[in-house]
This record gives sequence, structure tokens and C-alpha cells, in this order.
Amino acid sequence: MVIAEDLAKQQKSISVAEFFEKNKHLLGFDSPVRGIITTIKEAVDNALDACEEAEVLPDIFVSVRKIGPEAYRVAVEDNGPGIVPENVPYVFGKLLYGSRFHQIRQSRGQQGIGISAAVLYAQLTTGTPAVVVSRTSAKSTAHRFSLMIRTETNEPDVLEHEEIAWDRTHGTRIELEFRSSLAAKKRLLDYLKYTSVVNPHARIRVEIDGEATTFERVSDEVIRSPQAIRPHPHGIELGTLKRMAASTPETKLGDFLVDSFSRVGKKTAEEIAATAGLPIGARMGDVGAEAQKALLAAMQAVHVPAPPMSQCLSPIGEDLITQGLDKEFQLDFVKARTRPPSVFSGHPFVVEAAIGYGGKLDAEGTAQVMRFANRVPLIYQQGACAITARIAGVNWKSYGVSQSGLPTGPVLVLVHVASTNVPFTSESKDAVASIPEIEKEITLVLQDLGRELKTYLSRRDRNRQQEDRARAVCAVMPAIAEKVAEIVERPVPDISAIEGRIMRRLVARKSVRDGWVQITVQNHTDREVVLTIYDISTDAAEGAEPAPEFSSELDGEFTRLWNCALPPGGGWEVAYPGRGGGMLDVRGVEESRKVVVII
Amino acid sequence: MVIAEDLAKQQKSISVAEFFEKNKHLLGFDSPVRGIITTIKEAVDNALDACEEAEVLPDIFVSVRKIGPEAYRVAVEDNGPGIVPENVPYVFGKLLYGSRFHQIRQSRGQQGIGISAAVLYAQLTTGTPAVVVSRTSAKSTAHRFSLMIRTETNEPDVLEHEEIAWDRTHGTRIELEFRSSLAAKKRLLDYLKYTSVVNPHARIRVEIDGEATTFERVSDEVIRSPQAIRPHPHGIELGTLKRMAASTPETKLGDFLVDSFSRVGKKTAEEIAATAGLPIGARMGDVGAEAQKALLAAMQAVHVPAPPMSQCLSPIGEDLITQGLDKEFQLDFVKARTRPPSVFSGHPFVVEAAIGYGGKLDAEGTAQVMRFANRVPLIYQQGACAITARIAGVNWKSYGVSQSGLPTGPVLVLVHVASTNVPFTSESKDAVASIPEIEKEITLVLQDLGRELKTYLSRRDRNRQQEDRARAVCAVMPAIAEKVAEIVERPVPDISAIEGRIMRRLVARKSVRDGWVQITVQNHTDREVVLTIYDISTDAAEGAEPAPEFSSELDGEFTRLWNCALPPGGGWEVAYPGRGGGMLDVRGVEESRKVVVII
Repeated sequence: MVIAEDLAKQQKSISVAEFFEKNKHLLGFDSPVRGIITTIKEAVDNALDACEEAEVLPDIFVSVRKIGPEAYRVAVEDNGPGIVPENVPYVFGKLLYGSRFHQIRQSRGQQGIGISAAVLYAQLTTGTPAVVVSRTSAKSTAHRFSLMIRTETNEPDVLEHEEIAWDRTHGTRIELEFRSSLAAKKRLLDYLKYTSVVNPHARIRVEIDGEATTFERVSDEVIRSPQAIRPHPHGIELGTLKRMAASTPETKLGDFLVDSFSRVGKKTAEEIAATAGLPIGARMGDVGAEAQKALLAAMQAVHVPAPPMSQCLSPIGEDLITQGLDKEFQLDFVKARTRPPSVFSGHPFVVEAAIGYGGKLDAEGTAQVMRFANRVPLIYQQGACAITARIAGVNWKSYGVSQSGLPTGPVLVLVHVASTNVPFTSESKDAVASIPEIEKEITLVLQDLGRELKTYLSRRDRNRQQEDRARAVCAVMPAIAEKVAEIVERPVPDISAIEGRIMRRLVARKSVRDGWVQITVQNHTDREVVLTIYDISTDAAEGAEPAPEFSSELDGEFTRLWNCALPPGGGWEVAYPGRGGGMLDVRGVEESRKVVVII
Repeated sequence: MVIAEDLAKQQKSISVAEFFEKNKHLLGFDSPVRGIITTIKEAVDNALDACEEAEVLPDIFVSVRKIGPEAYRVAVEDNGPGIVPENVPYVFGKLLYGSRFHQIRQSRGQQGIGISAAVLYAQLTTGTPAVVVSRTSAKSTAHRFSLMIRTETNEPDVLEHEEIAWDRTHGTRIELEFRSSLAAKKRLLDYLKYTSVVNPHARIRVEIDGEATTFERVSDEVIRSPQAIRPHPHGIELGTLKRMAASTPETKLGDFLVDSFSRVGKKTAEEIAATAGLPIGARMGDVGAEAQKALLAAMQAVHVPAPPMSQCLSPIGEDLITQGLDKEFQLDFVKARTRPPSVFSGHPFVVEAAIGYGGKLDAEGTAQVMRFANRVPLIYQQGACAITARIAGVNWKSYGVSQSGLPTGPVLVLVHVASTNVPFTSESKDAVASIPEIEKEITLVLQDLGRELKTYLSRRDRNRQQEDRARAVCAVMPAIAEKVAEIVERPVPDISAIEGRIMRRLVARKSVRDGWVQITVQNHTDREVVLTIYDISTDAAEGAEPAPEFSSELDGEFTRLWNCALPPGGGWEVAYPGRGGGMLDVRGVEESRKVVVII
């Protein structure tokens, strides 16, 4: 029988590095294939965050090189602000070390785990150290480190450290060796492409085993880095309040409330104190455990304006989303929406979404789902993500889209969740957890966009129906015309113009009668058209009314040109003496939407 | 512009406690409702693990008491081996501290996070410390601690420590206060019920707000605690090998291999060394980085028998699963299968499953899915679990079960994954991650059981069809009998016995002719029946052949009793002189499956 004393011998501390080495799948290092992608994702996230903070236009270089049968060398380099040499070993050689964990603002990285986990995974699979180069300014030299993580203690182990020459004036480069494969190359390129779509200010150059791709920057505007805010009273737990009270430099309750919390002014502080039954001038040292409980209850009960969200959040924006998608898929329909910011458990968040239809999207199969969190594309675990569940939860049939769980057909759904604290289902940050407030916002924005899509689809269907009917009429018209001509003993009339009208085309007609040439243009389409009319014939057409804007003669052939803008239903005409014939063309409207008749 | 020096000021260590306080949803503390369940789950898991190690029949007491509008006090007490007083603060007041992390064997708890996370969550929501009582033997006194976790450092903070009198001779009790609600009471009871099903040796008493339930133990056999094994050469990464080589007390390569790894004997060690091109007697100090790489490759290349799995794994077993399910659902069909053990990344695992049909299961809707990992029921995140995905991935229609993702109808599917290292999708241990080897085993066992279900369903359908036909024949028989009687001018015959035969019933018939009473019993059912035949009448029935096993008289009425066992198709009869009539009854077969005729 094992007794307490035997068990006690086995009880001991587990280092964070040991924990995550054993549970590496929690960090997205569950397979050699995925290892490369996760590493690049962590490094690129860090690079973008750092450039944003330093207000630098990111210039990122990613390289993946095969160095053995199953071994790859990955390097990621940026032009960010660099890392001071004293901190380099900790940033890369210690899990749970970083600058963004305690700040309340939207950022890509947050935990201080990602890149050091990549170092851990590299040394686990190949036993080789990470190589880091960093330079903080043109005035200082670059430092090169070769380092590993001591798994048992989660402390960095610097094997080499030297100052070197580097052509970048500031930036950071990390190189790691993995046992891996490039089976997921497409996924990697997709990740980089989508990253570039939502980070139009970034230039990302990629070299995978000698093959180079560049995702060029399309905007020269530096993205405003979200600013940290103080915690909001509504999102505070008792334990947090206790800690804040214990560490505040303020001595009076009122000052503590105003200084420590977001959106608490003097008046709100007074209201909170009164509700808690505490004097606003109470000494912080006198606010005991019971008083703190009362204070917390009062902070929840009193109305406090929502946190200053535009400051700490950085949504992608409707225009950018629409442009990005349209560029990629040449959609027939695309609409994006950014919802007003909202709050869950005191954390500000904002949901954006877009729906695209047609274009280069696959007509068959399940809709294309694009998920983003804090401007980072989510590429794994689609099935476990609240975004996917909410997309499947919308009744798409009521918006004219077929559905089998997810919508089906040539549909694309993009959702971006941005927050000071995106609730992921695991440290690998692959999927957003089910938080009712966020789920509600996703549903609302998708319903909103669904209605827009429905309007588009039904207009398109109506147009198609009308066109079908018109086509049917036009099909019998020649026979009717012939019959009527026969009865009234007249030549068969030209019916192209009538057809054009029925088919909602632009009809240009050149006819001659009694020595006068007449050109008419009639806009039967449903949109305004801006036209250039070319008329070529042997007629000199002097005295044309209106006069052509341009006119020339070559070997007895005269070319004339008019410009005009016609609203739907509008018409234009010109007449001049002559014999007619020759050529007539109208530019400014698609070939399939115009009818040109010369009689 | 922010520069490296500004950023450096914000870069700092994050304690594990801070990390998990902020990311409490990763541990299953994402909502007040869930908090109670997660806490009880962690405490009960620990109690069962400790009792198993100490070879004690677990006697666990769980209490949940409302102590305020939104506040609950949860206590879990066990009769395990207890914890030595010096270690109590660390077990409950430090995340990543435990005895099972470094051991390769199946256990419920592993990370040393769960129960201290509950302490962290309690102090976060109510600010109150945890109270722990522990006693290690009748010879020592019990110790009572009141403690919290210092979040910034992840170190325990003992507020009170005293020796007290306690009626248990050994065991541990923890009490915590939460802001919570009992909205998920049913889920909590389900968790405890399923826990008791797969831990039949445990007695679990529950008191929820005054309402008591006991899940009684149904077996007095102590579950054999799985034994730890050494790592298997096939599951080793280079980093691990390096660490093992650095810390081994052995000085020679051969001894190192034999002593450090599971299933490596002298011969296998020689083969590994030869494949790696190293002398078997090489000094460990001379085995450098390159040699280690060669060694690792050789360890993967050489055939090594699978790890000794029955020692480190503890499956529930087919009988126990079947009994547990049948007790709960009174199923029409139930079959369980335990697969042979297998290995993923060097970790032994075994998959068990069961399929149930009919009984008390809902005839409508999706199948009931019961997931277990290392004998612990999984209650959250069904959608994110590889078990669910694999169940949905089976083509159930080919086994005669309708399907819409998951199978539908009165079906139950149970899957248990047991391993020395269950790969969960997050620290909350709600869902099993997608590991190809495990997924394959789940699919195989479900296909196997699916075939069994199909056999059952088609036999049932065939029986139903036969019964339908028989019913049709029986419906017209009275009319035929009447017609025939009319034609042959005889009285209408009694056709019940014929009906019984057609309908596959047991037919008991008592008739009288020429002063002799005859009782016949014919078994037309498809199973053996063991019967007791009661015959009551005014006949004394002396000289009955066979003689009744019991006979009595009351007021001129005689009661007689015979026992008999009849195979399908078998018959029995008795005859005695008398006038017949009275009463006849047959016990031992359902009412609906027997026909009794008295003529």
C-alpha cells in the first residue's frame, strides 16, 4: 500500500516549459507539418505588433529552407524596433515573458508564449539552438545570440553572444531548425496572403525552398497602434480589486477609483462610494475585505459608460475588407459591416464581417469561411470555433442561400473578432471560444449582411426572370413581323430596335430618309451610360446638329465622334444631310448590352 | 515613436497563476455555472487517483451549499492516503505542482493544475481562502490549513495552520467558496453518475443544498492502480534523449539504453548501438550531439516490442460497461468492445466503446454520446472532441441506423480513451484532440460494434415481419374456422392453440374428455422457458401423471403446482380423472407471450 509519505516523495513543481513540452499540441506544435506554420505565425505576429508599436511600415522576410531529409531551417526577419540585448534571452528563451500580457489593448501576441514555444519545439525535435539577431538603432551594433531553453527551469541558456555587423538599421531575425515537412505549403501561403490582406501596410517577402513570392504593401499608411486603457469597473473580479487596492499609490478611496479605472470620473466615484456605503474620502488602508465586497457590488450596480473602445481596438474597416476580398475573388456581390464596439466581462471587442457571392468562388460545395482574430487569420480548428458555429447557426435559406450546416454555393463569409482579450479555446489561438456576447454580435452582423445578400439575389433573379420572358417574346417576334408584313403587304420591318427595348439594351440606329441621315441612341438599360459614338461614312456631314466633337477625313472617308451621357430611358440623336451607310459604333457599354442597327 | 528601450520597460515575466487567472476559460472556469462542476470534477479526480494509489475503496463526500444570493460553498472529502502537512500548501496553492506529471501511466489528474486552479478561481470571485483538512494515518493528527495563491508569484500563502481532531483516520477535505449558480445541477449529477458507473468500487455521497443522493459502490474490489513504465524508444524526441543522457547515473551506453527505456534488453541495446555506429560499451560522456542524433535515428529504426501496456493502462472492461449501461437504460441491445492496446508518439493507449439500442433511450433526435477519458466522463465541448467527430464519421446508414452527422434514433454510443497521456484540446480536459492513431482505433471499434448492431436490427426486423404476417393469418382464421364448421356441419373449433403456434406464443390448454382432464403446455416461442404451472379446480386429481410437486385443498377447491423447463418447440402434459374447468395459470413467461385456453 502506498501511503502519504511515499506520495510526498513524488510531489514536485513542474516548470512551464516542461508542461508545454509535454502538451505541445496546446500551442499548435502537435505535428511536424504544423510546426513550421505555427512558428512563422508567431514570428510574423510579433513582427507586426512590434512595427505597429514603433510606427514603422513592416518589411518582413520569411524563409524556409530544406537542410536534410526531414529537417528545415526557418528564418523570419523584420524591420521592427529590435529588442535590447539584455532582454533577448528572455523574450526567446523563457515561456510566459512579454510586454503585452498586462496591457488592455488589442494586439496579436499577448501571452509571451508563442515564439519561445517555437524555440522549445525546435530544440526538442532537432536539438539545435535558436539563433537570434537584433539591432535597436543605427547608432548601436547588432547582437547575435545562440540560445536554448532549460526545460526543467524555464530559464534561457545562452550558448553564444557576439556583436556583429548587420545591414538592417533596426529589426530582429530569428532562425530555427525543425524536424518537419512542407506538406502544408499551400496553407502557409494562404496564411501569409490573408495576413497581407488585413495588413495592407505590410510587405511580406517569402522564400520557400528557393521559390520566392512577395505580398506587396498596398498602403503607405502606418496603422495606428491601439492604446492601452485602464480596466473597466464592470469587468472586475473581487480578487483583481483586492490586488489593485493593495498596490495603489493613492491613499483615498475617491482618488483610487478615478485613477485606477477607465470611465470613472469624480461623480461616478462618488456614486460608487455612496452605493457601497463608504465615505468617498475613506483611507484605502481602512477599506477591509467586507468593504471591498460592497465596493465591487457597487461598481457593478452603478452605471458607468462603456470603455473608450476606439482607442484600444483597431478593426480592419469595411472598405479594406471589401477591397481585399474583391481583389482576391472578383466577386459579383460583396458587402462588409463593422459593428459598434461592445463589451464582454469588461473586455471591449468589435465584430466585423463580410459576405461575398459569385465571382471566382466555387459554385459547388460548402461556403468559404475566413476567420480572423485581432487581424490574424485563423487557419486551424475551424470546427471548434464559435465563429463557425454562429455562421452555421444563421438560417441562410431565408436569405436565398442553400445550407447544410454552413451555407453552400458560391458564398464567402468573413468574420473578424478584435478585442483587448480574444477568448481563444487554447493557447494555440486557433479558435474563438463560445462567449454569448461575442456570439450575439456575430449573429447580428451576419443577419444584417444576409439581408443585403438576399436583396442582391432577388434583384438578380428578377432580372433573370425578366430577361427570360423578354427572350421568349423576342424569339417569336420575327415570325409575327413576317406574318403582319404579309397581311398588310409591306416589306418585313426591322425589329432590332424593338428587341433592344424589350431586352433592356442600348439601341443605336442609323437610318437615311429623303437625303437626311439620322442617328438615334436610346438607353433601354437600367443604368446611366456615358458613351462615345463613332460614325464613319462617305458623307461629309456638314451642318450636323449637334456638331461632332471631333471630325476627320482620310481617302474620302469621314470619321465623326460625339460624347453623351444618358440616364436609364434617355435618348440622343443627330441628323445631317447625306447618303448614310458606312459604320456606326458606340463605346461605353458592354457588347452584350447593345444593339447597333444600320438601315 | 516607441523604441526598443521603451518596449524593454514593459517586458517582464508572467507567473503561471497570472496566466491562468486571465485565461481561466482554458481550465474550465469560464462561467460561474461551470466553476462548481469543474471544481468538483478536479477534486473527485484527485480523490479517486489517490485512493487507487493507496489501494483504498474510495468513500467520497461532495457537498454544495448556498451561502448567499450568488455564493456557494463546495466541499469534497475523501478517505484517501492524505497529504503530508509540508506539501499541502503546494498541492493546493501552486499551479503546476503534483506527483503524476513525470510518470508514464494512466491517471485522471496529470498536470498538477486542476485543484489549485479551483483555489485561484475561488479567491478571484469571492476573495476567500481555501480550507484544507488532511490526515495521513490514525497515528498522526489532522492538519487544517487556510490558504490562498499569490497570483504574482504562483506561490502559496498560508493564512492559518492548526492541528485539529478529525473523525477520518486518513483522507483529505477541501472547501471553497464561489460566486456561482446551480443552473447546471443536472449536468453535475450526470457527471457523478457516470463517474460512479466507470468506478464501481467508489461510493459517492452528494448533498446539494440539503438534497442527498448516494451513488453506492457495486463492487468491493479495489481497482489495480496502473504502474508507471519507462519511456519507449519509439516515442522519444531528440531533446528528451539529450536530457536523459545528461542525467543518467549509468556510464556505459549499453547500460543506459537497457536501464532507461522500456522493452530494451541487452540484445536490442546492441542492435541500436550497432545501427547508430556506436560501440555498446561507449562512455556516455563521449556520446556527443551528432552521436545522439544517430542514436535517436537507430532507436526509431530498430524493432522494439510495444510498451508493456497492460501494466500502465486500466481500461474499464466490456462487462462493466455493458452492465453499467444496461442498469441505466434497460437497453434492448448493448455490446461493448475493448480494443487491443496501441501506441501514438510512444504513448500507450487503449480505446473501448459500446453501442446501445432501444430501452429507455429517446426514440427521436440525435444519439446519446457518452465520452470518457482515463475513466473520467467528459461533459463539455462535445463538438470539439475527436470522439464525436469519429462517431459522426462512421457511415451508420450501412448499419441500419439513420444519421444526420451523428446517428439518430434510440442509439447510445460510448467511447473511452485511456492513455498514459490523453491528448486533450485544452487544459480543461473537455475534449480529445485529433490524433490519427486514436481516431483510427475509435473508427475500427465503432465499425465492429456497428456490424453487431446491424445483425441485431435485421433479426429484429425479420421477427417483426414474421409477426406481421402471422397477425394477418390469425385475423382471418376465425372466419375460416366458422366457414369450415358450417360446411362440415360441426361446432366451430377452438383455434387459440393454433393462433399461439402461429404467433410464436406459449400455449397452455386445459381440456376435458370422457372424464379425464388433460393439461398441455406447448412452447412455440424462440427461447427456453422455465415454468410454474398452477391448476385450481374442484377435482382432487388423484393419480395425476406426473404427480404435482405441491397440492393443497381449501373449502373443496384443490390447488396443484408443477415446474417444468421447455426448450423452444418443447411440450409438457399431465392428465388426471376429473370434471375440468376451474383455473389454469402459467408463470415464467411474459403476459404478451402466452395463451391460456380452458375448454
